[in-house]
Amino acid sequence: MAPVGAGLWRTLRAHQVYGANTDVGKTIVSTVLCNAVQRQKQRAAFLKPVSTGALDDADDRHLKRYGAGTLTKCLYQFDEPVSPHIAAKQKTIPRDDDLLASIHNTLTEWARKDIDFALVETAGGVHSPGPNGNSQADLYRPLRLPIVLVADSRLGGISSSISAYESLLVRGYDVQSVLLFRDDYYQNHDYLGNFFRKKSIPLVSLPAPPAKPAQVDADSLARDEEAMLSYYEQASKESSIAQLLEEMHTKNAERIERLAEMSSRAQDLIWYPFTQHHGMQPKDITVIDSAHDDYFQTYGTSQAETSVNELRPTFDGSASWWTQGLGHGNPNLSLSAAYAAGRYGHVMFAGAVHEPALTLADTLLKTLDNPRFAKVFYTDNGSTGMEVALKMGLRVACERYGWDASKEQISILGLKGSYHGDTIGVMDCSDPSVYNQKVEWYRGRGHWFDFPLVKMVDGKWKVEVPDEMRKNLGTDVEFESLDAVFNLDARLDSDKGRRYKDYIRQTIEGLVRERGMKFGALILEPVILGAGGMLFCDPLFQRCLTDVVRDHPEIFATESTHHKKEESWSGLPVIFDEVFTGLYRLGRPTSASFLGVHPDIAVNAKLLTGGLIPLCTTVASQEIFETFLSPEKSDALLHGHSYTAHPVGCTVAIESIKTMNAMDNNGSFDQFKTNWAQRVDSHAEKLAPHVWSVWSQDLIQDLSRAQPVESVFAIGTVLSISLRDAQGGGYTSNAAKGLQQQLAVGGHKFNVHSRVLGNVLYLMSSVTSKPESLQELEKLLRTALV
Amino acid sequence: MAPVGAGLWRTLRAHQVYGANTDVGKTIVSTVLCNAVQRQKQRAAFLKPVSTGALDDADDRHLKRYGAGTLTKCLYQFDEPVSPHIAAKQKTIPRDDDLLASIHNTLTEWARKDIDFALVETAGGVHSPGPNGNSQADLYRPLRLPIVLVADSRLGGISSSISAYESLLVRGYDVQSVLLFRDDYYQNHDYLGNFFRKKSIPLVSLPAPPAKPAQVDADSLARDEEAMLSYYEQASKESSIAQLLEEMHTKNAERIERLAEMSSRAQDLIWYPFTQHHGMQPKDITVIDSAHDDYFQTYGTSQAETSVNELRPTFDGSASWWTQGLGHGNPNLSLSAAYAAGRYGHVMFAGAVHEPALTLADTLLKTLDNPRFAKVFYTDNGSTGMEVALKMGLRVACERYGWDASKEQISILGLKGSYHGDTIGVMDCSDPSVYNQKVEWYRGRGHWFDFPLVKMVDGKWKVEVPDEMRKNLGTDVEFESLDAVFNLDARLDSDKGRRYKDYIRQTIEGLVRERGMKFGALILEPVILGAGGMLFCDPLFQRCLTDVVRDHPEIFATESTHHKKEESWSGLPVIFDEVFTGLYRLGRPTSASFLGVHPDIAVNAKLLTGGLIPLCTTVASQEIFETFLSPEKSDALLHGHSYTAHPVGCTVAIESIKTMNAMDNNGSFDQFKTNWAQRVDSHAEKLAPHVWSVWSQDLIQDLSRAQPVESVFAIGTVLSISLRDAQGGGYTSNAAKGLQQQLAVGGHKFNVHSRVLGNVLYLMSSVTSKPESLQELEKLLRTALV
Repeated sequence: MAPVGAGLWRTLRAHQVYGANTDVGKTIVSTVLCNAVQRQKQRAAFLKPVSTGALDDADDRHLKRYGAGTLTKCLYQFDEPVSPHIAAKQKTIPRDDDLLASIHNTLTEWARKDIDFALVETAGGVHSPGPNGNSQADLYRPLRLPIVLVADSRLGGISSSISAYESLLVRGYDVQSVLLFRDDYYQNHDYLGNFFRKKSIPLVSLPAPPAKPAQVDADSLARDEEAMLSYYEQASKESSIAQLLEEMHTKNAERIERLAEMSSRAQDLIWYPFTQHHGMQPKDITVIDSAHDDYFQTYGTSQAETSVNELRPTFDGSASWWTQGLGHGNPNLSLSAAYAAGRYGHVMFAGAVHEPALTLADTLLKTLDNPRFAKVFYTDNGSTGMEVALKMGLRVACERYGWDASKEQISILGLKGSYHGDTIGVMDCSDPSVYNQKVEWYRGRGHWFDFPLVKMVDGKWKVEVPDEMRKNLGTDVEFESLDAVFNLDARLDSDKGRRYKDYIRQTIEGLVRERGMKFGALILEPVILGAGGMLFCDPLFQRCLTDVVRDHPEIFATESTHHKKEESWSGLPVIFDEVFTGLYRLGRPTSASFLGVHPDIAVNAKLLTGGLIPLCTTVASQEIFETFLSPEKSDALLHGHSYTAHPVGCTVAIESIKTMNAMDNNGSFDQFKTNWAQRVDSHAEKLAPHVWSVWSQDLIQDLSRAQPVESVFAIGTVLSISLRDAQGGGYTSNAAKGLQQQLAVGGHKFNVHSRVLGNVLYLMSSVTSKPESLQELEKLLRTALV
Repeated sequence: MAPVGAGLWRTLRAHQVYGANTDVGKTIVSTVLCNAVQRQKQRAAFLKPVSTGALDDADDRHLKRYGAGTLTKCLYQFDEPVSPHIAAKQKTIPRDDDLLASIHNTLTEWARKDIDFALVETAGGVHSPGPNGNSQADLYRPLRLPIVLVADSRLGGISSSISAYESLLVRGYDVQSVLLFRDDYYQNHDYLGNFFRKKSIPLVSLPAPPAKPAQVDADSLARDEEAMLSYYEQASKESSIAQLLEEMHTKNAERIERLAEMSSRAQDLIWYPFTQHHGMQPKDITVIDSAHDDYFQTYGTSQAETSVNELRPTFDGSASWWTQGLGHGNPNLSLSAAYAAGRYGHVMFAGAVHEPALTLADTLLKTLDNPRFAKVFYTDNGSTGMEVALKMGLRVACERYGWDASKEQISILGLKGSYHGDTIGVMDCSDPSVYNQKVEWYRGRGHWFDFPLVKMVDGKWKVEVPDEMRKNLGTDVEFESLDAVFNLDARLDSDKGRRYKDYIRQTIEGLVRERGMKFGALILEPVILGAGGMLFCDPLFQRCLTDVVRDHPEIFATESTHHKKEESWSGLPVIFDEVFTGLYRLGRPTSASFLGVHPDIAVNAKLLTGGLIPLCTTVASQEIFETFLSPEKSDALLHGHSYTAHPVGCTVAIESIKTMNAMDNNGSFDQFKTNWAQRVDSHAEKLAPHVWSVWSQDLIQDLSRAQPVESVFAIGTVLSISLRDAQGGGYTSNAAKGLQQQLAVGGHKFNVHSRVLGNVLYLMSSVTSKPESLQELEKLLRTALV
């Protein structure tokens, strides 16, 4: 099933008609509008996707009779005048996706046939269930047609009209006009006119239609028909209707014009993150009109010159810089955000507490399930959260070892190619690289180990030892499966394990004893070093590094101040940066669990809010917390941001984590895996106990054997493809550009937006990606590479 | 008018009854519930704040007749069965605040009288207008009673019920239970039961009530009465009702229990920003249940032991760490956030564009109205935004002057006591202080000028020169008004102005020539140095500093690489940190305008989103932007955060800035001032052309003469009071603690939550604070100090 594009056509103004309630006169309003269009010598069309009620009453029939030549169509007709979800029980039900595709196809066809104006009428109110029981407002959201809202002119209609409007707004719809019947007693049009004027939404009131005939004899029906004809004749001539149609026309044109200008205006006004603007053209900027589930709706990306569709679904292949978990435009997250905004706005956090911050701390600690963790510190993003972790780590090390950091440099231990954010403190935690090379205040303060990589090359999983480490660590090793690579219990006592440990211990000893270095923390991105180039580190190496640091506190200070006890840090405080890898990105609540290590401090962000808004947590042990206790205010961790623990972020994070935990079924990785596997059933049988991914093993095998590919790996939602580069690769390589461009052109069903890191192209799904989307993506990859 | 407290009582379970629409049976449901309570030998009460419709039909009369002894009360009765806002036209209308106060008082009285259960019934649907035309959902929001939602069992009722629920959610209400009538044809109870079960909200369906009598003769009415009595007898005995009442009871008790535990649970789980936890007790933590406008609703802060109210309004005296502009729980911001979440979620920004980011960039550039500004760079908070500004500044200086920053230290110029955030890069931009003293990686890199302060002492405005600067800058100067202090046109050519400039130039020359320092940027917080202790800098000094830097590029480098042209930086790039002072905090769109300076780079955050969620902008000139252009990717500004330009933040910011700009009336400061002045009319006549504040001149005068007070100042929304401290003041002083505690106890009407910076206590309003609140606050200050 192809994802449906949002609806936007240059020549066809297509709107969806929603009612504030049932029986507010949607069809009569539609008929008036279509009449007026037809009378202007333009061509109107009316689409009723799902109709319930007796056949004679069917809305498209009404349009046919009174629409002054309006083209009409009904996709699914049910007989009983009840909600479609009940009516549908009696009939074959169209799948929601099919229904959307049919609507989109119909409208596209109409656009091709030079129809000028089309209305897609919903059934009942905005949240009335569609045939499969889903709210129409959710069901039709992928189309995101501009809305004509028919308000309710009856008693109570002010309220139901505003609430309906708000439900549409929460789902990211643009309500473009409001119509209702005039009722001089209740005067709803007056109140609502004022209300919508403040929102710059035009409201038009129409004369009330003739009363329905009390009898159904032939005479009454004939009189009714006469009255209706005359009503439409009158109503469609009202000047406010002509004006409204003009506005709708203008708005459609302006919207396309705005979209067309967006990339050049962006080029004028925006300074992009991580972007060399030199030589950048407007065409290099992706124009995103909206997004839903895994797809952006992008402008100017249609495949064919002949396409009349202005928008096209584009798979969000970087999960929007690794943030997405629960789909774009997720209404539950949207409502969570709105609830917290309505209940609190933002409230002061220092010295105060609100329920979302407390519940999130509790939920997070349970989810991370690390007996060392006791306290949660909030900041706004991974970079600031890592600065906090660093401050925590340095302080406790200096306290225990009696170092005066104002007089001597305290360094950190890490891995080459690590990345922890772009504020100076955490930049200094990374080794010199293209990211920090020209940053005036960058001063790398640490030692960074090179390390063996895990990759699939030519169909074989292997651990590849860097040339200059072979002397110490030995040669590359092949594994029969990725699972075997992660079987650390078996590997720890192997020759490799012993070599890793010896090498690491000797190296640190050398740095401390010979070069006099002092270390304040071990900082790792478990399993994958993301921004450094999607480097998949041998988990055994990270495990050994942690073990050596913890088992040999005597390396770090000659004094006997080092001690080790259960649930206390030893050697160095171990900080895990799980901003990218944590919270189910790799299929588990924590990436630490792959290493079998309980860090002393961990940082989470990105997926924390399911991919909606910035929020970060730095979690630490009680012992680390207590190191900052003293009668002196200046001993405290004097770090904070204005929006620390903002209730909106915390509330969204609670909803996100709970949703992901529920998929994980109470922390049981197996259950989560099985659930997922059932959805990606083609490779369910190949899942292994330790690791698995949403990407099929077949694909990984085939890609790894493809000529342009150097190596591949996949774990959890992440797929990474290293392309051969004669110049050696790295961040400045252009080797992956070609593949990126091929994906951007996309296939028959959608385009793919992806990010590259030098010669590496990676793709990342959300936690809720549909198997169909991923299978289609796999096809595109095969076409491009295999 | 006192702000109303949110409603929560230990023994009284009070709920507000909202209907999904009019005529859904709110009163019948209320009667069933009250009946059931009375039958359990508990005491029920029913409050109809505003009733419309014929007197005989009045809902409280219905309750009186059928409520099995339920106590009933109606506050305002209108005759016509139309919306209250129309009915009210015929009668004296209660003010919204009075209505809220009456409800709160009635419920409190009932709580005192040992009523167990109370329902406050609304009129019509959730958004039906109250007597003054405001939506009830907004009108009653300050009470934030838990909601009993009566859903609609008719055709269309699924939609209207869910929409009504969402409108309540967006306003931060807790919908605690849903009731509706069973209708076996439409089966709404089935669908809605499932829907609300997923939200953990119990739904109870009731048998449909007897049909209304067709005739109104005595016999029919008697039969109807009989039928109703029997209906209530039956319905109130349904086991689901007993169960629901039990749940309501439990939820009320659990809510209070949770509130009671919150501070100790927070103490267990949370590591607070900027907080020394040593000696901290749960009682030191403010428990915020919700917030509205300027008030938190706090638990455990009632003034009297005898109070039955569990919650009390507490003025948010720090504007929640300087973030608040448009009031807590602002429904427009809440809806803006929800709309963007629904339309986009978060979408990738590097290399892409979405409308909110573009519109915000445009709106912001127009609002800042600085001809130098051309490009907007987005980050998440003031600290990261300042890191970006710093990177911009250092790069352009090093480029122009040909310095290699990897080989030599490039410093910044600033003021003593400055603060730009807590990430290491911007910490290094501040002079050594208690904030950074124990931060292991802090290395101050700059020179920081001491500077003259503006303060009112003993009723006189004066500019106070620090002792060690008198030799160069001369003595203190008194001014007849604050306005005169800001009359920089007049002051620039004064003796002081010349002395300032000479001193600044000579100092920098000394640093560069004698100490070999190289400077890469001038970084200032215009007008007020916030976190440094609310230091009100003589604006002339900041102006002179900028002028000297720009007029004497030859100081900074011996090479002739320095040049000056219109709209190009000269000497050093000038960075203004307006995170705290910008966007109307001081009453103007920019604080730079007070100095008459156009900075080259400016950073805004806090008020940018009106006080809802984190977002930050760093705005720079075209020339600075172009310095980063090169064919080398590594020359780009390689800085970014995952949620860069998140659409939710951008959309909320657009709404906030537009709202504030509208108050400012298209950039005309005078109009904004006058608007504000009219609301704070008691001191309107004292407004001066250059500066003004929401705090009355009388107060400032009187406070400045009070014995415990060293000095005072007020500008825009900010009021700062320095208290005498024998130990000399500063961040570690406790001199302001006493005043803070007095304000925390509060007055008759509300408590005050404030923050202190050492011996300084400051208060800050939002942009929309009510004059009544501020006047009451002023009274509390006088009581405490004068």
